[in-house]
Amino acid sequence: MKSRTMVILALLILTAGCGAPVDDGRGAAAADPLPSWNAGPTRDAIVAFVARVTDPASSGFVPEAERIAVFDNDGTLWCEQPFYTQLAFALDRVRAMAPDHPEWAGDPVLAAAAAGDVNGVLAEGEKGLLKVVMVTHAGTTTDEFAGLVSTWLAEARHPTLGRAYTRTVYQPMVELLAYLRGAGFRTWIVSGGGVAFMRPWSEAVYGIPPEQVIGSRIATAFELREDGPVIVRKPELAYLDDKEGKPLAIDAIIGRRPLAAFGNSDGDLAMLQWTTAGAGPRFGLLVHHTDAAREFAYDRASHVGRLDKALDEAAAHGWTVVDMQRDWTTVFPPDS
Amino acid sequence: MKSRTMVILALLILTAGCGAPVDDGRGAAAADPLPSWNAGPTRDAIVAFVARVTDPASSGFVPEAERIAVFDNDGTLWCEQPFYTQLAFALDRVRAMAPDHPEWAGDPVLAAAAAGDVNGVLAEGEKGLLKVVMVTHAGTTTDEFAGLVSTWLAEARHPTLGRAYTRTVYQPMVELLAYLRGAGFRTWIVSGGGVAFMRPWSEAVYGIPPEQVIGSRIATAFELREDGPVIVRKPELAYLDDKEGKPLAIDAIIGRRPLAAFGNSDGDLAMLQWTTAGAGPRFGLLVHHTDAAREFAYDRASHVGRLDKALDEAAAHGWTVVDMQRDWTTVFPPDS
Repeated sequence: MKSRTMVILALLILTAGCGAPVDDGRGAAAADPLPSWNAGPTRDAIVAFVARVTDPASSGFVPEAERIAVFDNDGTLWCEQPFYTQLAFALDRVRAMAPDHPEWAGDPVLAAAAAGDVNGVLAEGEKGLLKVVMVTHAGTTTDEFAGLVSTWLAEARHPTLGRAYTRTVYQPMVELLAYLRGAGFRTWIVSGGGVAFMRPWSEAVYGIPPEQVIGSRIATAFELREDGPVIVRKPELAYLDDKEGKPLAIDAIIGRRPLAAFGNSDGDLAMLQWTTAGAGPRFGLLVHHTDAAREFAYDRASHVGRLDKALDEAAAHGWTVVDMQRDWTTVFPPDS
Repeated sequence: MKSRTMVILALLILTAGCGAPVDDGRGAAAADPLPSWNAGPTRDAIVAFVARVTDPASSGFVPEAERIAVFDNDGTLWCEQPFYTQLAFALDRVRAMAPDHPEWAGDPVLAAAAAGDVNGVLAEGEKGLLKVVMVTHAGTTTDEFAGLVSTWLAEARHPTLGRAYTRTVYQPMVELLAYLRGAGFRTWIVSGGGVAFMRPWSEAVYGIPPEQVIGSRIATAFELREDGPVIVRKPELAYLDDKEGKPLAIDAIIGRRPLAAFGNSDGDLAMLQWTTAGAGPRFGLLVHHTDAAREFAYDRASHVGRLDKALDEAAAHGWTVVDMQRDWTTVFPPDS
C-alpha cells in the first residue's frame, strides 16, 4: 500500500513535470495554464519571470524553497466593490445580533449597520468600521467564529453581481496561483482583511492553506474551561496588516523576502517596494480595475482600494500593471 | 533537462518511500530512523502515534496537510543550561559594543553584562534580561541582525560543553524531527526565544525553514532609505511567545491546531494543553532532563526551564515523558 502510494505520487509529479507551465521557448505548452489571460505584454512578463527563476541554466535561477509569492486579497484575488466582503459579513452579523442588543438602537453606527445602511456606517470613517467589526468579530471562540464565516458564505450573495462571494474571485488570478505553485512557488495571502475571516475558505477557493494566510488580527485569550481549553476572540485590534504593516508581517511571519508580490492598491505599495528591492529577479504586479462592464472601474479617486501612489511608482520600479479589460478574457469563474 | 530533473525527483521520492520510517507492524524498517532512542515505552509511544495517524486504514488517519508538529526550542531541541544561548549571544554583544557606550559603566545590569557576569544581569530579574536584550537586539536592520547571529554562532562555544552551540542540539530530537517529516508532518518551532535569533540557522541545523519558526519578537519599522527599503529593529517587545502566548501564536500564525507538541518546561504547558485537547489522535511529549552526567539534571527547582506543573499534568493528559538518561543512547551529535 505504502509503495503504491509512492508510485502514484511519483507519477503525479512526473505528470506535473510533463505539463509544467514553463515556456521553454519552443512553442506553447500542451495545456495552457493561463487560459483566461490574453496574449500580450502582461502575460509575457509573468511567463518570462517564472521561466527565469525556474530554469536551472538561468542566471536568475532560484531554489524552490525561496520561491515565495505574496498576494493581497481584496481587489487582487476577489472583488472588493461596492464594499469589502468582510463588511457585508459584519453588517449581516449586526442584523442577526441586533434583537439581543436593544442598546444598539441608540448608537448611530450600529443602528445604521442593523438597517444595512453602509453609508451610515462609513459616515463615521474608520471609527465606525472598527466598531462594527469589534461587536461582530469578537466574543466567540476561534472555532465558533470559523463556523459563523462558513455558514454566512454558504448563503450570502454579492449585492450587484448576485453570486456567492466565493465566486467573485478572479478566474485569471486563480489560474495564476496554480501556475506559480506548479512552478514550485508557495503562494501566500497578505491581506488587510481579517486572517480569521479568510482561513475557513482560502484552501478550497484558492488552494492556499491556513498557515499561508496572513491578515489583520484581533486580540485573543487562552481560557481553560471545564470541557477544555479554548481561544477566545477579544474586541481589540492586535495587528493591522496594511501598508507598511504588510512587509513587516512578511518579515515577522515568513522570515524571507518574497520573489513576487501582487496587489491592487496603495495599501500594497510597501509590500511591492520591499519585495522588488530584493537582490536577483523579483516581480511586482498591480491589478488595475479598468473594466466597468464586467466588474468595476476604479483607481485614484476610490475610497475602497484606492490605487494612486502605487500606480505612479509602477513604471519606475518596472512593475507589471494588469489592465483588466485588455488582459483578461474573463473576470469571474462560472457561477455554479 | 526538465524531465530528467523530474525523474530524479521522482526517484528521490520513491527512495524516501522505500525507507519510510513508519513501523508497519511486520518488523523493523530497513534503516532505523531513531537510532539514538532506546527501545522502551517512550519510543514505542512515538512510533505508535505516527503509525496511527499515517496508516490510511487506521481510524485515526490524518491527511498530510493536517500533520503539524510543534517543538519548543530551548531545552527541547537544544541545551538551555547553564543559561539560554541567546543570553550568551547578548552578553557577548554587550562586551563588543561597550567601548562605544561609556555610559553603560554606570548601569549595574549593563556593566555586569559587559563583564560577562550572568548573575549580575539576572540579579535584576526579567527587567535586567530585557534591558540586555533590547540594547543588543535592536538598532540594526533585520538583514544586519541575521549576519550578527551567524557570525557569532560560527565562533562562540558553550561555556561548559566546549562545543559550538549548533552542536548542543539533541541528536535524538533531530532524528525525531526527520522521522516526523518522513511521515508527512511539517515540523514547526514555537519558542520563547527570539524568532530572528533562530531563523538564520534553523534550516541547516534542524531542517526547519524560516517560515516554520515562531518565536518572541521585538517591534520593527519599515524605512525607505536612499538605497532602498529596510526593516529596522526597535527596542520594544512586540510579542512574548511563552506560556499562553504559544497556543495564541499557533492560532494566529499557523491557524490549525497541531497534532503533536513537544516541550520541556512549564512555558510549554499551555501549548501541550491546546494541542492534545483537539479531536482525534494527539500527542504531547515532555523532555525531562534527568541526565547530570551527559547533560544537566533539572526540573521543579530550576530557574531556567522549570518543569513543575506540566510534569504534574502529564499523567492525567497521557503525555509521554522522556527520561533522558533512560531513553536516549546519546545526547549530542558528534562534535565536529
